[in-house]
Amino acid sequence: MKFTDMLQHCWDVNQSLLCVGLDPDPKRFPKQFESNKHAILDFCWDIVKSTGDLVCAFKPQIAYFASSGAEDQLKELIARIHGEYPEVPVILDAKRGDIGSTAKHYAKEAFERFGADCVTLSPYMGFDSVEPYLEYPDKGAFILCRTSNKGGDDFQMLDCGGQPLYHAVAKKVEQWNTTGQLGLVIGGTYPKELASVRALTPELNFLVPGIGAQGGDINACVQSGMNAQKTGMVINSSRAILYASSGEDFKEKARAVAMQTRDAINAARGL
Amino acid sequence: MKFTDMLQHCWDVNQSLLCVGLDPDPKRFPKQFESNKHAILDFCWDIVKSTGDLVCAFKPQIAYFASSGAEDQLKELIARIHGEYPEVPVILDAKRGDIGSTAKHYAKEAFERFGADCVTLSPYMGFDSVEPYLEYPDKGAFILCRTSNKGGDDFQMLDCGGQPLYHAVAKKVEQWNTTGQLGLVIGGTYPKELASVRALTPELNFLVPGIGAQGGDINACVQSGMNAQKTGMVINSSRAILYASSGEDFKEKARAVAMQTRDAINAARGL
Repeated sequence: MKFTDMLQHCWDVNQSLLCVGLDPDPKRFPKQFESNKHAILDFCWDIVKSTGDLVCAFKPQIAYFASSGAEDQLKELIARIHGEYPEVPVILDAKRGDIGSTAKHYAKEAFERFGADCVTLSPYMGFDSVEPYLEYPDKGAFILCRTSNKGGDDFQMLDCGGQPLYHAVAKKVEQWNTTGQLGLVIGGTYPKELASVRALTPELNFLVPGIGAQGGDINACVQSGMNAQKTGMVINSSRAILYASSGEDFKEKARAVAMQTRDAINAARGL
Repeated sequence: MKFTDMLQHCWDVNQSLLCVGLDPDPKRFPKQFESNKHAILDFCWDIVKSTGDLVCAFKPQIAYFASSGAEDQLKELIARIHGEYPEVPVILDAKRGDIGSTAKHYAKEAFERFGADCVTLSPYMGFDSVEPYLEYPDKGAFILCRTSNKGGDDFQMLDCGGQPLYHAVAKKVEQWNTTGQLGLVIGGTYPKELASVRALTPELNFLVPGIGAQGGDINACVQSGMNAQKTGMVINSSRAILYASSGEDFKEKARAVAMQTRDAINAARGL
């Protein structure tokens, strides 16, 4: 199934736009994971099992696995998600961006080695840095547009002939999106900017980080970013869910925060 | 030793601005590497031993290792380079770019796990995506400025208030470079643009891909990019050296092309 169809299906069956970001930081794990060689996998899998019916996607962040040399655990985690929750797409957050010949290898890493359904990419090197990912027709990619961090202003807000750079990126990605595989990453901390990109690109799907630990307001974010069908968004929360509790009740607490977040998003959609 | 001092020292002792890029593609290896489980490591190590006295740096491209699940071979390769050629810095070409909390993990991956002396980074997410790498005072980072690929024009050439975006990036990186750890990635295929960035940032070091297989002219590239000391450049060639021959003589041919390239660079410097 194509990534966008998979996402549409998961929005529908789980009635959720929430994505749980899997950023496993062993320093923040509950005590019970101490001296567990597969702590990263086991912790993430506990989170997945606690939230799998509440989400439209999972988004593992590859840096957290790579810093611990835990590529095998990432691979196993994605395989388990696909086995147990076949309706839930997995977005590998990697933000790659390189020349075509190198991008082919990153695409192979994400889609063939790890089995992800979608990746995040950086736009800075232009279309030939994105093209190799499109050669996998069932896979998707979200391109960085307006990011939720402080430094996001440094270049994304530069005036490029009467429009900010991130608008130029949004328009280009819409042009590139002839196959329907592309979407945009837009931080949830800037609702007005989210609304401006929604107006420019009514059809593109948005991956929206920045709610939860990064402080974005859910109501403003959803109303600014949703499309005419009241979907079109994959709203990510990572740390607020993963580390809702550092005690033995971390699974229950993670589920409770995920449910609360899903419900707040749905309320903002008017469901 | 700080990365920039290491680079300066290596420019001097090897009298070379040449960097050999290690982009190991098993499909292009000579026959003798067939059914070798450590072909990536063994091939790269053969190239390193054939060129180690001719270079100012080695630049492994992480995508080529990651697509084959060969992280352990990358780690071993860098350790061997440091053991056998302690004067030669290793630049891990990764082009990472992510929010601070994630960038910390990528920095840990590059510097602690793999032991690289320097990384390449993307500027799109701004200063807080670069800052965590600077917390390792002996390490360096080259930030993408003007890239040598076709799609490099898509955004880097956009007019931002009378200057192209890549000039805005160059100026910001110079501001960020209070500790001397930063440099710029500028393609060798655009000598005029290289000269324009050298004029803007006389002190920054440039990592320059795009000669060799990508077709850049060495003479124009060196004369446009070198600093007042006739250094300031790390001129990368990957495929033209690695795959100079697909036969049993690949090591000799790689050495011959590397020597030719080093000499052409030195001639252009007027040495």
